[in-house]
Amino acid sequence: MPALLDKITEQVLRQIDSGSGFKQEGAFNLRQNGISLCHGSTEHIKIKKKEDKPGIDVYIDGDTKGEQVHIPVVVSASGMVDIVYNDFYIADGADVTIVAGCGIHNSGCDESRHDGIHAFHVGKGANVRYEEKHYGEGEGTGARVLNPVTKIYMEEDSMFTLDTAQIKGVDSTVRETEVTMGAGAKLYVVEKLMTHDNQKAESNMAVYMKGEDSSAQIISRSVAKGSSTQVFHPRAVGEAKCHAHIQCDSIIMDEAQVRSIPEIDARHLDAAIIHEAAIGRINNEQLIKLRTFGMTEEEAEGVIVEAFLN
Amino acid sequence: MPALLDKITEQVLRQIDSGSGFKQEGAFNLRQNGISLCHGSTEHIKIKKKEDKPGIDVYIDGDTKGEQVHIPVVVSASGMVDIVYNDFYIADGADVTIVAGCGIHNSGCDESRHDGIHAFHVGKGANVRYEEKHYGEGEGTGARVLNPVTKIYMEEDSMFTLDTAQIKGVDSTVRETEVTMGAGAKLYVVEKLMTHDNQKAESNMAVYMKGEDSSAQIISRSVAKGSSTQVFHPRAVGEAKCHAHIQCDSIIMDEAQVRSIPEIDARHLDAAIIHEAAIGRINNEQLIKLRTFGMTEEEAEGVIVEAFLN
Repeated sequence: MPALLDKITEQVLRQIDSGSGFKQEGAFNLRQNGISLCHGSTEHIKIKKKEDKPGIDVYIDGDTKGEQVHIPVVVSASGMVDIVYNDFYIADGADVTIVAGCGIHNSGCDESRHDGIHAFHVGKGANVRYEEKHYGEGEGTGARVLNPVTKIYMEEDSMFTLDTAQIKGVDSTVRETEVTMGAGAKLYVVEKLMTHDNQKAESNMAVYMKGEDSSAQIISRSVAKGSSTQVFHPRAVGEAKCHAHIQCDSIIMDEAQVRSIPEIDARHLDAAIIHEAAIGRINNEQLIKLRTFGMTEEEAEGVIVEAFLN
Repeated sequence: MPALLDKITEQVLRQIDSGSGFKQEGAFNLRQNGISLCHGSTEHIKIKKKEDKPGIDVYIDGDTKGEQVHIPVVVSASGMVDIVYNDFYIADGADVTIVAGCGIHNSGCDESRHDGIHAFHVGKGANVRYEEKHYGEGEGTGARVLNPVTKIYMEEDSMFTLDTAQIKGVDSTVRETEVTMGAGAKLYVVEKLMTHDNQKAESNMAVYMKGEDSSAQIISRSVAKGSSTQVFHPRAVGEAKCHAHIQCDSIIMDEAQVRSIPEIDARHLDAAIIHEAAIGRINNEQLIKLRTFGMTEEEAEGVIVEAFLN
């Protein structure tokens, strides 16, 4: 029998677990205010609660083909600090989509924080898609803080797609991502981030291309509104014959500030690494064009920002 | 009567003062092994020796139109540490070319080092072209070290072109460049750097666009051979309506390593900053094409490297 969810949890889940939405079916684990409210395993995907610390171990066997794992986190208690360690063991040849995400509803005056520390052990030839949405809401004055740490270990010929988005409402975030790549491994990262008001966001990413013919494509798009600040520090290290392309584009609005500090580090003759970054304001011509359709300036900006982030 | 120069000094001058070559004419100052060997002023450009520390003050008046100042430095004594402070006062409206450069001939076993600390005070509407070549030679085992510090203060509507090249033979260099730009100021930087053997090069550059409509274009090209290492950290900070474009391209050969850490920092809604960087090996197709002309691999590489750096 499925667990009964309160209104706030359901509302937050609609934001962070998009697509078909969160259901208590298949492989899943719903963490709410620091405890696992409900979870389920399947033939190929086993979810086990950790014994020594908060979090789960997720075992995905090699016969997994196209299955999804949903592991949303909801924090609705003001003043809560929730630290969770999730480890994913993806067997050789598995093909899986992991849908994570964290939403904080803070209606109090104390800071609510969630730190998700995730490690992915990706077997040979496995194909993993990892989606992660971060979101904050609530009428309280307490800050909504998310500090995710993501470590990805990729074996030969594996593929990992990291699709991460901070939608809105997160007052402070420091993201740490580290990827180690074996021969022939392929990494795709799409990072989207929107900050507003006095929010602060920092994203540090290090990609170590250690194996021959590994390749990485990193796309980061961000919009900074209000007096928010963002700092990006993606780092691509080529230690073998490899290929990487990093692209960071940001739109600044109002009084916002964006710093982008990409680092490309070639330690091998056949490491080919390219980086592009641009920061600028909204395209004025686009704005004018949309306003001729009768949109207000705000509406037009909204359309452009949404198009830019999608 | 011109000062008599020794063979080594003449030979080094041919490398670092290119174009028409160094002559003891017009406005000039030749510094050799820590002392000013000879110098001259003109109607519009006065060179004065500093009283309180090593170095010169160069006063360029507003009627200077297209004149050149040559201030080469030669260090040929092994084991010497030569620190020099040169200040340039460029009056409103002046148009001047400053040709600097330092060559170290080290035939001993002790490290020879030259640190040129240069400050440019560029008046309104002035146009300055600053050329600087760094070079090392000599059969000695002692290191040839160059640590230039360049500070540029640009007033309204001034223009500054910084053309800097490290040709070869410099074992270790740490370059620090800082530019502060007033309204309408325009900065052009071309940095070329070649390292070989066990050489190390680091270049840190910060450009502060403080005035409205200031703009900066920075092009950095480097070739790293042998087991040399290079680190680039250009930084463009937009504090007003401004425009900047940074482009860093590097070729790695052999066992060399290159790190490029550009930083773009937009602190104003109308700061538009673009950065591009690429590190890779020599274009193989080009190499093959040149070899069909009968060139050896080395010769073909030489041609490509030279074309890339020019």
